[in-house]
Amino acid sequence: MKSPVNPLPNRTEISQLGEFGLIDYLTKNIRLQNSTSLKGVGDDAAVIAADNRQTLVSVDVLIEGVHFDLSYTPLKHLGYKAVAVNISDIAAMNGKAEQIVVGIGLSNRFPVEAIEEIYEGMMLACKRYQVDLVGGDTTSSHSGLFISVTVIGKAKQEEICYRGGASVGDLLCVSGDLGAAYMGLLLLEREKAAFKANPDMQPDLEGYDYILERQLKPEPRTDVVEMLKQAGIKPTSMIDISDGLASEILHLCKASSLGCRIYEDKIPMDAATLTMAESFRIVPTVAALNGGEDYELLFTIRQTDFEKVKAISNISIIGHFTEQSGIAEMVTTDNQLIRLTAQGWDALKNSEEDKKADL
Amino acid sequence: MKSPVNPLPNRTEISQLGEFGLIDYLTKNIRLQNSTSLKGVGDDAAVIAADNRQTLVSVDVLIEGVHFDLSYTPLKHLGYKAVAVNISDIAAMNGKAEQIVVGIGLSNRFPVEAIEEIYEGMMLACKRYQVDLVGGDTTSSHSGLFISVTVIGKAKQEEICYRGGASVGDLLCVSGDLGAAYMGLLLLEREKAAFKANPDMQPDLEGYDYILERQLKPEPRTDVVEMLKQAGIKPTSMIDISDGLASEILHLCKASSLGCRIYEDKIPMDAATLTMAESFRIVPTVAALNGGEDYELLFTIRQTDFEKVKAISNISIIGHFTEQSGIAEMVTTDNQLIRLTAQGWDALKNSEEDKKADL
Repeated sequence: MKSPVNPLPNRTEISQLGEFGLIDYLTKNIRLQNSTSLKGVGDDAAVIAADNRQTLVSVDVLIEGVHFDLSYTPLKHLGYKAVAVNISDIAAMNGKAEQIVVGIGLSNRFPVEAIEEIYEGMMLACKRYQVDLVGGDTTSSHSGLFISVTVIGKAKQEEICYRGGASVGDLLCVSGDLGAAYMGLLLLEREKAAFKANPDMQPDLEGYDYILERQLKPEPRTDVVEMLKQAGIKPTSMIDISDGLASEILHLCKASSLGCRIYEDKIPMDAATLTMAESFRIVPTVAALNGGEDYELLFTIRQTDFEKVKAISNISIIGHFTEQSGIAEMVTTDNQLIRLTAQGWDALKNSEEDKKADL
Repeated sequence: MKSPVNPLPNRTEISQLGEFGLIDYLTKNIRLQNSTSLKGVGDDAAVIAADNRQTLVSVDVLIEGVHFDLSYTPLKHLGYKAVAVNISDIAAMNGKAEQIVVGIGLSNRFPVEAIEEIYEGMMLACKRYQVDLVGGDTTSSHSGLFISVTVIGKAKQEEICYRGGASVGDLLCVSGDLGAAYMGLLLLEREKAAFKANPDMQPDLEGYDYILERQLKPEPRTDVVEMLKQAGIKPTSMIDISDGLASEILHLCKASSLGCRIYEDKIPMDAATLTMAESFRIVPTVAALNGGEDYELLFTIRQTDFEKVKAISNISIIGHFTEQSGIAEMVTTDNQLIRLTAQGWDALKNSEEDKKADL
């Protein structure tokens, strides 16, 4: 008789392979892509070649039940996203991600096939963004799944963009559009709730590809970093939007000891986001300001770079920096001036419910 | 009325500070020690200066209930150990650890004071080994505590020791002594079981300082790396002992496609380890071979370096490399030849019980 707890047709227990067997199995197909990756998986540490560029390092942790819900997150997407959000951090420094090391903890309710799916997703993101997986630690946990990815990137000293470099009058720009990832999350949560109420119901996700992709498979804007470089623009400050526009603007303000004023009608939003926000009776701007997980780049440029940035597609100028230290304001479409507060995604809040209550 | 679930006199909920408040609070006292640490906590990524040395990167994950038991592991020790075991990985490459980034997941049963303890332990190890904490991601989890530390080190190209560089006839050396960390673990488990059976009982840990320290507060052997350098010895291969001597020897054999023969009477053991093993009726050699967590360095040297290595205190020559690819043997004290198998600590085994059953 087949085990009733077997969710996949082929289930190999992780304990059958053991730690070293699992590492061999998962990493056997890794081909290093970067010339700086001298030694990958298989020793006490990976070795990355010295060159004349500085090293950039960042870590992001994804935890089941906090950052993702396995009832609607495919494992492959999860692996992809874990790598993508880290590459985004390096892009936000105006650098190029070249290596990652991965720490995974998972309980034995997951078979080898599940962790293989996660690795496949990670390798897909690695391939797309030319990043090498050079090390890792995979271990059992008593409950749940967590993924910790550390990314190592490079940038020339003079190219690095910090959060704190803006001056008064600098223009605030954002790539792509905002709020869609949050709309995707709300849609997935709605369908999950409907499914719980009536398990015979099929989830209604047709026609929502864009907002779902934005939530489940975000792409780091390495293309924007490249386009800015091609255009001869070095942002005076930069950050990626993981927590929501408002929170990230306040980070830039704090780091530069300046203020910022943005204009509601300049905030870029996709039509799909607007439609979905309407059906949820949410003000779309609120989704952009506080929703988070868009992984677009938010950056400031000198006013003298105005014409250059206008020539790049998919970049919106949404405001400018002011002398009012720490104060970020928004001019609304009906010409009110409101103060922005950081109500974005905060992983230390007690639950998703708290987070939504803030919106 | 005071809450009955309050385990510490001062309990600050993590949600009171929020993610950014917590980061500010925990990192406010960090002073960067290495000239290569250009930018630490506070931006999208840390920045590490380019120089003519290669970069070494390694990650280790510690999970509650798998790698540590909070009923007898002080949080400060846990933080210290999480950093120490990572520094050990860089030492095993013959390099110097200079930076760490930290990913922590913890449930809201932990107050801010608990995570502060963990950070204090991490900072203590950082200070002792001149390592800078340059980044991190702290987030809530639904259950348990996990710590993922990624360490970044440096070494000159010609100094790096890989696992696979040994030749036939090379001498196998080990620093310090083995088996004590495992004896410390067994002692702590015994006292925990006794306490469970009778909560009025006081744990009997008097006089066991050495084996307890080896388990709870291991020290990476950066001093050995330094002494070898001073003596003009470059190991032909090197690894640190995290899983037990047998498993690590097999790693070196596999990486160099050679075999190894060791001598039981040469394995260094402390008197405290021998005494404790006797009281547990365990063959001490088994604790050394399979116990793990000693974090000593295991390395090979050319025979021509024999006199040089003999002049260094606390290094034992325990065997030599042979032509028999993948085969590691031990000559026992009664002159039997037995084959070594990897039965060390495997974090993917289902439980502590399994692990002990293997010994």
